[in-house]
Amino acid sequence: MIYVTRKTHFNAAHRLHNPDKPDEWNEKVFGKCNHPNWHGHNYVLEVTVAGEPDPDTGYVVDLGSLKKVIEDRVINKCDHRNLNLDVDFLAGIIPTSENLVRAFFLELKNEVEKISSAGSKLHSVRLYETERNVAEYRP
Amino acid sequence: MIYVTRKTHFNAAHRLHNPDKPDEWNEKVFGKCNHPNWHGHNYVLEVTVAGEPDPDTGYVVDLGSLKKVIEDRVINKCDHRNLNLDVDFLAGIIPTSENLVRAFFLELKNEVEKISSAGSKLHSVRLYETERNVAEYRP
Amino acid sequence: MIYVTRKTHFNAAHRLHNPDKPDEWNEKVFGKCNHPNWHGHNYVLEVTVAGEPDPDTGYVVDLGSLKKVIEDRVINKCDHRNLNLDVDFLAGIIPTSENLVRAFFLELKNEVEKISSAGSKLHSVRLYETERNVAEYRP
Amino acid sequence: MIYVTRKTHFNAAHRLHNPDKPDEWNEKVFGKCNHPNWHGHNYVLEVTVAGEPDPDTGYVVDLGSLKKVIEDRVINKCDHRNLNLDVDFLAGIIPTSENLVRAFFLELKNEVEKISSAGSKLHSVRLYETERNVAEYRP
Amino acid sequence: MIYVTRKTHFNAAHRLHNPDKPDEWNEKVFGKCNHPNWHGHNYVLEVTVAGEPDPDTGYVVDLGSLKKVIEDRVINKCDHRNLNLDVDFLAGIIPTSENLVRAFFLELKNEVEKISSAGSKLHSVRLYETERNVAEYRP
Amino acid sequence: MIYVTRKTHFNAAHRLHNPDKPDEWNEKVFGKCNHPNWHGHNYVLEVTVAGEPDPDTGYVVDLGSLKKVIEDRVINKCDHRNLNLDVDFLAGIIPTSENLVRAFFLELKNEVEKISSAGSKLHSVRLYETERNVAEYRP
Repeated sequence: MIYVTRKTHFNAAHRLHNPDKPDEWNEKVFGKCNHPNWHGHNYVLEVTVAGEPDPDTGYVVDLGSLKKVIEDRVINKCDHRNLNLDVDFLAGIIPTSENLVRAFFLELKNEVEKISSAGSKLHSVRLYETERNVAEYRP
Repeated sequence: MIYVTRKTHFNAAHRLHNPDKPDEWNEKVFGKCNHPNWHGHNYVLEVTVAGEPDPDTGYVVDLGSLKKVIEDRVINKCDHRNLNLDVDFLAGIIPTSENLVRAFFLELKNEVEKISSAGSKLHSVRLYETERNVAEYRP
Repeated sequence: MIYVTRKTHFNAAHRLHNPDKPDEWNEKVFGKCNHPNWHGHNYVLEVTVAGEPDPDTGYVVDLGSLKKVIEDRVINKCDHRNLNLDVDFLAGIIPTSENLVRAFFLELKNEVEKISSAGSKLHSVRLYETERNVAEYRP
Repeated sequence: MIYVTRKTHFNAAHRLHNPDKPDEWNEKVFGKCNHPNWHGHNYVLEVTVAGEPDPDTGYVVDLGSLKKVIEDRVINKCDHRNLNLDVDFLAGIIPTSENLVRAFFLELKNEVEKISSAGSKLHSVRLYETERNVAEYRP
Repeated sequence: MIYVTRKTHFNAAHRLHNPDKPDEWNEKVFGKCNHPNWHGHNYVLEVTVAGEPDPDTGYVVDLGSLKKVIEDRVINKCDHRNLNLDVDFLAGIIPTSENLVRAFFLELKNEVEKISSAGSKLHSVRLYETERNVAEYRP
Repeated sequence: MIYVTRKTHFNAAHRLHNPDKPDEWNEKVFGKCNHPNWHGHNYVLEVTVAGEPDPDTGYVVDLGSLKKVIEDRVINKCDHRNLNLDVDFLAGIIPTSENLVRAFFLELKNEVEKISSAGSKLHSVRLYETERNVAEYRP
């Protein structure tokens, strides 16, 4: 089995806030990440496909095509945007890294597998919120 | 001459917008950086002091003390904040990297030189907005 | 399943030496890593928790709390210390990266799982002795 | 189980081209990677061994010995070479990252396991063609 | 004075060879870099402009525009190409990093200064052939 | 003028301690860096030569030869050693980064200039004690 990964990035604003809870709860649980005027990150996104290389091309997936799918489905909707306010498929989700990687995985799965070699699967989505804080969804 | 550098980081939201100009001008000039709902970055900040080491300590500046000054004057005011709305010494400044490094330099100069060896000067302030975009103020 | 990782670092001295073996054996097996006056590293430590996000917070684990546990149990005992002489839970262990990651995992497991979402587990501990040499414990 | 990784690197030229297909197919499928005068990369190679540490040494594998095996079997044959023309064990293989990691794994497996602790196995070979494009073979 | 830097990258093949010298001289002087079947690198290019920010925009130079000029003048001509054979403005030049940075500087100077704030100058061009080998032209 | 840089690294133990001062002074001034059982770092060393490329080779300095000089004069004496106890040219020097870069510069200057193109000079020596703490000597 071969795992192929494409690394991309986007810059976005966000805020951690659960609207179903009182403000004091949010301040206590999320601390400075709850700041009402937003803060932001240079997110780094790694998308991994697992499969066997196509015998004609030697590719599990063409990384140029994979880049285009990631741009269409994730980057163009999130880059230079506010993750709480601007992204259709994140509506109603608290934008923790944990929730983001699951949402990105679901958004990417079908399109990524269409462009990959026969039998290949979307394996994982990993997101670096900072160099020190990382989340990965791998079902 | 010896140059000593301390690297720190903060995460903030911002937006490039000149309030003295019409919206169309701002959209044309700043493009996606003008997005009204903000975006953000993991900023990396490098502060450099130039001088001769103190003969007793071998230090141009104690990097622990330098870290504390940078935290007091810059990081604690900018981290997990909105650079357009929340930072006193940035009021009225379009938060481009160019304008930020000049503002940070002025904010740091006196306090940094107080804790440095005799004759040392604040040499430069460098800011990485992303890994690919950098500005440095060096008078 | 979601995997959340926090990256931290510490600087320490060590020496590879098996006291049950003669000096010639140690010199032959460990080479320059056996140097009697010690050497040292900037260790980078990655701790990964696996689980499901808490529905209220969206967190598998609050990375600020995870950072505090790692500091209490590992960093504060190892940073700017000698791994052969100064760390209680490393007594009697040859401080290879392999032995360090197992010891750190055992030291962290209970405390990390107490602060994580229901059902989450400490998944792995990875240690970069240098950028080129890495060990990971993943039971 | 402990996973020990050694990171190395080499610089090589290559070209993606399937000689069994017409030129137009190659240009369409491989795009600029099919350029006839070659292009090249700074490849980064990570080799991971999985096992239990030897009780006398605390090593799953001596990373100095592992480095020598990787140099003998891969680096010395690929570094400052043309991957399509110069490497015996790559003859007849389209040098995509997917095909390279499988070929490197097969080339390394026996020699790596000979120098590792009892029961240890070569676990994976990972190759960064660029910082953004990665392939891993993990059987 | 403010220094603004944009980092870009390209992947290319090359060979160090002085056609005015005999083969033995070339082999002795350039060693493995003289290999006749080429080798290659992931080049990282940093272009720095020095000046004062425009008062309306806060920019020394719009980094999006700077990126476009670097792409037009350098990246599109060098990326996935052979630096000895394919690049018009490198004809007759031995493609050492030293010679490349001077050639890139001359190629970029006029176009970069046209898009920069009044009085700004192209300050330097830095090229990483590998992470360990760097050359910079700064007149 | 062209600046050519070679990046190398070594791992060493050290301790900040001024033997002419009482223990309390040392503890107060150097804090955890004064720990008596040593600590250590993965030092990264960057050596820069400034000059004009030789017309026959296109080199300011052959980076392979520069690497050898750095190994002979610095790395082989410092790597896997104790900087307070084991290095002849550091005797009597408190091993702060400031003092190390000056000592390395003096140790390297003559040998580096012998292997560089006519008129070239050793320009600077930069040392990363950690990724966050850097010192540079540039006379």
